Amino acid sequence: MSEPVLLERARRAIAECRRIAAMTEEPGRTTRRFLTPPVHHVHELLRRRMESLGMSVAIDAAGNLRGLTQPADANAKRLVLGSHIDTVPNAGAFDGILGVTLALELVELTQNLKLPMELIAFSDEEGVRYMPFLGSRAVAGRFDAPTLLSLRDREGVTMEQAIRAFGLDPGRIGEAAIGDEALGFFEIHIEQGPVLEAEGLSVAAVTSIAGQSRFAVKFAGHANHAGTTPMHLRRDALAGAAEWIVEVEAYARQTEGLVATVGKLGLEPNAGNVIPGSVTLGFEVRHANDPVRKEAAEALLERAKAIAARRQLVLESDCRMDQPAVPMDEQLTAFLTEAIGSLGMPPKRMPSGAGHDAMVMAARMPAAMLFLRSPGGISHHPDEIVREEDVEIALRVGQKFVERLAAEIR
Amino acid sequence: MSEPVLLERARRAIAECRRIAAMTEEPGRTTRRFLTPPVHHVHELLRRRMESLGMSVAIDAAGNLRGLTQPADANAKRLVLGSHIDTVPNAGAFDGILGVTLALELVELTQNLKLPMELIAFSDEEGVRYMPFLGSRAVAGRFDAPTLLSLRDREGVTMEQAIRAFGLDPGRIGEAAIGDEALGFFEIHIEQGPVLEAEGLSVAAVTSIAGQSRFAVKFAGHANHAGTTPMHLRRDALAGAAEWIVEVEAYARQTEGLVATVGKLGLEPNAGNVIPGSVTLGFEVRHANDPVRKEAAEALLERAKAIAARRQLVLESDCRMDQPAVPMDEQLTAFLTEAIGSLGMPPKRMPSGAGHDAMVMAARMPAAMLFLRSPGGISHHPDEIVREEDVEIALRVGQKFVERLAAEIR
Repeated sequence: MSEPVLLERARRAIAECRRIAAMTEEPGRTTRRFLTPPVHHVHELLRRRMESLGMSVAIDAAGNLRGLTQPADANAKRLVLGSHIDTVPNAGAFDGILGVTLALELVELTQNLKLPMELIAFSDEEGVRYMPFLGSRAVAGRFDAPTLLSLRDREGVTMEQAIRAFGLDPGRIGEAAIGDEALGFFEIHIEQGPVLEAEGLSVAAVTSIAGQSRFAVKFAGHANHAGTTPMHLRRDALAGAAEWIVEVEAYARQTEGLVATVGKLGLEPNAGNVIPGSVTLGFEVRHANDPVRKEAAEALLERAKAIAARRQLVLESDCRMDQPAVPMDEQLTAFLTEAIGSLGMPPKRMPSGAGHDAMVMAARMPAAMLFLRSPGGISHHPDEIVREEDVEIALRVGQKFVERLAAEIR
Repeated sequence: MSEPVLLERARRAIAECRRIAAMTEEPGRTTRRFLTPPVHHVHELLRRRMESLGMSVAIDAAGNLRGLTQPADANAKRLVLGSHIDTVPNAGAFDGILGVTLALELVELTQNLKLPMELIAFSDEEGVRYMPFLGSRAVAGRFDAPTLLSLRDREGVTMEQAIRAFGLDPGRIGEAAIGDEALGFFEIHIEQGPVLEAEGLSVAAVTSIAGQSRFAVKFAGHANHAGTTPMHLRRDALAGAAEWIVEVEAYARQTEGLVATVGKLGLEPNAGNVIPGSVTLGFEVRHANDPVRKEAAEALLERAKAIAARRQLVLESDCRMDQPAVPMDEQLTAFLTEAIGSLGMPPKRMPSGAGHDAMVMAARMPAAMLFLRSPGGISHHPDEIVREEDVEIALRVGQKFVERLAAEIR
């Protein structure tokens, strides 16, 4: 069934990701933070590709590389495509960058439609150097320059200095904001989770970016000698925390679409022969529906309090993040779902548990997002891979989606 | 009821502990490891006290300060008294050293009995610099010189070098071993636990030193993105470990005299938004009865395996210690219990959950041990205290015990 030309394009998009993975701050592994020197090489490669497609290319003051197709009609609204080109430390080759190389293929594939398009390679989404979503914040007009520019990286370099060192003018970040000339935003991204693989599917339309709550939770008891303190005279902070962790898991399992995680845990004094005096936990809850998420977080913190009270422990909790869910645009997502179905595949729709550029762009324009299967659910790791056939399918879905959109506005 | 002279002696023993606490490696807190410079000052103070009681004093090659009363009969067997003078880092003032200052009072109080006595201030019990029980090992003839002398402290100094630097001859450690001239060993020590305080008692006779098993236990699952991995597709190592920690506690609570503790825990990767891929735990079990301890350890590791299997986790466990219980001498402990009862107090008997010099000495001679209430159960901490009245009672019990022993062998 596959058209040889699309398979070739899928292979080229993958090969380009692999080539870009070698553009790194650390030899032997892929680490590419916001506006570090290897970003120049990525820009060079992408600029050449864009120019070969007849696009006019510029880098905005937030370090986003932006290519514009030449519109036949200067007043025609354009479709914005793209994803990010920064990475986590010791990253895989596809997180973000695949959305850029596939967008290049899509621009070329749909040239005949004469739909004006802008392709953006966002400078920062992971936030490893300063803060997440710097690139899309600037484009969406949500870049709080006075605050953000004074942030420092671990070497003490301010963001303002970093932007200047890259050859850009931080005073012009406001100009990066996109106006009403945008029709919508479309991002292709690897799922970074195991859902599509578990269901045997290549792609899915993203319905929303899940909201998330994060808390620091502390159970405090009393550190005592593990040999001399009988069980009934203990106030073991870890035993209380363990009881709660089991309840967190059980609650989330019973709630459709909810994920709740204790991913971080620190013991004091953390010695083999001492009863734990205190345990500090990093706890987070995500759901596509904000009331469900808030109710879960509240209920679970209530349970923690009840466990602590029964065990004569002291419970403290501190909310560190309360980020609402961001729905993707209904109309665009319907087009995307139809495009999947039109290729004879189940029109899978799912929320995204992680944040993406599309989440920030959705504040400014209708946004849609296509997920691509992540084999093994592996991401943020050098073992991150994609399957050629899934990449080809993503391209075909993207092509159908752009065609539908072009037909719609004509 | 208290005799003023004994109360004065109790106060003096406490004051001497406080004075010795200032002899430290670290200004402002008490840290006194094996044969470090402040030990010279402790020896000086104790030697002066011993000599004022007419004792002949020497330091053996393992750094134990030893005072002998002058026996009327050169063939008479002697009672050995003592405890240790080393400390943990940032210690309290009474752990170990109170058993030495009380032994000094006991020697003076019972001079009229003409019972030959040896008072030993053991050089090392805590093992912070090299290994626990170095002092009592040497006296009990259990000092494996070739192995032990080549151990290095954190600065790289071998034990052999440390002994020489203190002015002693490591080649003569064998001579520290005590022979058949010993009648028995008696140690007074703070409980370092909350049992006596919870029961409102001043002292107890120790029946045995509990045996202990220690294990490193590891649950391995799969680290994944906390936002993108649904609950049913997780292999969360921490959720499995938490389930087990709850079972460990429940099992120990149901088993009389058993203590089981997870005191140490390490997560990988330990990041708030990553499902824990592996959890490593330090697990220990103690009981005065070896079969009960072994059965508990086996049953709990079996439960860990079952939990891991059900959750598709991999379980590893590695036994790091399997130390049998050491019973105190029945006859001496009966005399000690009677001495407590004869003063009108409940004749409390209890095992010790922690190791002590008496445990090592018991390999060589009949040993008995008296525990003294630890307010708040606090030990190995600057807040460690003792109550004057308990110290006085310990002294009276010790006096009765020595009188009984002297009468017995006459």
